[in-house]
Amino acid sequence: MQRLTIAPTQLQGQNLLLTKEQRHYLERVLRLQDGSQFQVIDGTGALYLAELLLPDAQIISQLSGLDPELAVAVTLVIALPKGNGIDDVIRACTELGVREIYPVTSVRTIPQPSSQKQQRWVKIAQEAAEQSERLLIPIIQEVQPWLQVMPMLRGQRLICAARGELPHLLTSINPSASLVIAIGPEGGWTEKELNQSIEQGWQPVSLGRRILRSITAPIAVMSMVSGFMESQPPIKNSP
Amino acid sequence: MQRLTIAPTQLQGQNLLLTKEQRHYLERVLRLQDGSQFQVIDGTGALYLAELLLPDAQIISQLSGLDPELAVAVTLVIALPKGNGIDDVIRACTELGVREIYPVTSVRTIPQPSSQKQQRWVKIAQEAAEQSERLLIPIIQEVQPWLQVMPMLRGQRLICAARGELPHLLTSINPSASLVIAIGPEGGWTEKELNQSIEQGWQPVSLGRRILRSITAPIAVMSMVSGFMESQPPIKNSP
Repeated sequence: MQRLTIAPTQLQGQNLLLTKEQRHYLERVLRLQDGSQFQVIDGTGALYLAELLLPDAQIISQLSGLDPELAVAVTLVIALPKGNGIDDVIRACTELGVREIYPVTSVRTIPQPSSQKQQRWVKIAQEAAEQSERLLIPIIQEVQPWLQVMPMLRGQRLICAARGELPHLLTSINPSASLVIAIGPEGGWTEKELNQSIEQGWQPVSLGRRILRSITAPIAVMSMVSGFMESQPPIKNSP
Repeated sequence: MQRLTIAPTQLQGQNLLLTKEQRHYLERVLRLQDGSQFQVIDGTGALYLAELLLPDAQIISQLSGLDPELAVAVTLVIALPKGNGIDDVIRACTELGVREIYPVTSVRTIPQPSSQKQQRWVKIAQEAAEQSERLLIPIIQEVQPWLQVMPMLRGQRLICAARGELPHLLTSINPSASLVIAIGPEGGWTEKELNQSIEQGWQPVSLGRRILRSITAPIAVMSMVSGFMESQPPIKNSP
């Protein structure tokens, strides 16, 4: 069934107040008739069944189903690749279940992009969440310097490095903690950046024995983590 | 160190006969001087140290190091996505260790591409193997219909399906067998295609609880399989 993403503030009791853009989307793009049913997500985990009652819509019921979210929250910190490479990375990582993305600049990244790009990334994440039938829309942060983001993140913090004899990501993760995983730019983190983060408690990990491009690595991380979690028996929360 | 891919037939004893294109690459692109050393792979698993002795080169020694290949061979069967989407898929899957790719047409794929594309894919796989520091270059087959390829492949055969309560890929793989994993087109395999392959002994598996695009799914498969294998203790071959 067709799915629409709304802001939680558009719900007033059972009434769903549509924006002009949403009305156009439902009527012209999805070609729904007055009285047709569709699904609604508010991006915070709720899924509703709604009925189009022009000019607005009505919530019929809240739906529950197989939860498509990963059992623990995964935050990715991604050093910006060249050009628009990050667009595909955000799209694929959203499909694979990422909860939050911090695009960062580091010593070896190119200059910081405009703030317009961040708005596009938010839209890409929303569309990818809809298409992959997720209930949560990942949060895409503004671009910040790695050194500013690095000390403030909480959870199990892992930093991927391409060289050196390091334990594999999947032998290092603690599946009951929320995960924060940082992936470097083309050319990698500098030795200084790696050492600074290790001093702050980040664990360096490997993604395997081959060198991955910076636009492949975040997708590989999310695939490995989601595969690991969804092939395990259910995780009991610690008391 | 810079790396050159050669055909095994270019080696005559210790002499490495260079093509005009390779000579240009070494001298003009990599800017190596006469007497400079570089690495050579022949795409079948061997790694050599060589010295430029214009107009050809000389093998100094065979190198051994950390084997960058996965412990078992993984063959992917990929239903062609729209446009040139397969290019990025071949590139990323090569970085992640795929051994062979069968691009296929299926009921829901668009028409078969020209044979020129296959030549481009071979080149993409070679470049990605060099960049990711692999020793094997994946074999890229010509495009064939799924129904022709499906019955002839051997190994543990898994077919990914987006819908239905299926066991996860990673709970299904037998890490001592060679793996053959088929990934459908946008819109998925038809029910008939799925049933036909199950009758032929293919096991249907899930990639998780979210819907992946057809260009994300093969990259996710290779990431999950490589992560699974490289985070396990070494596999003993059965006697």
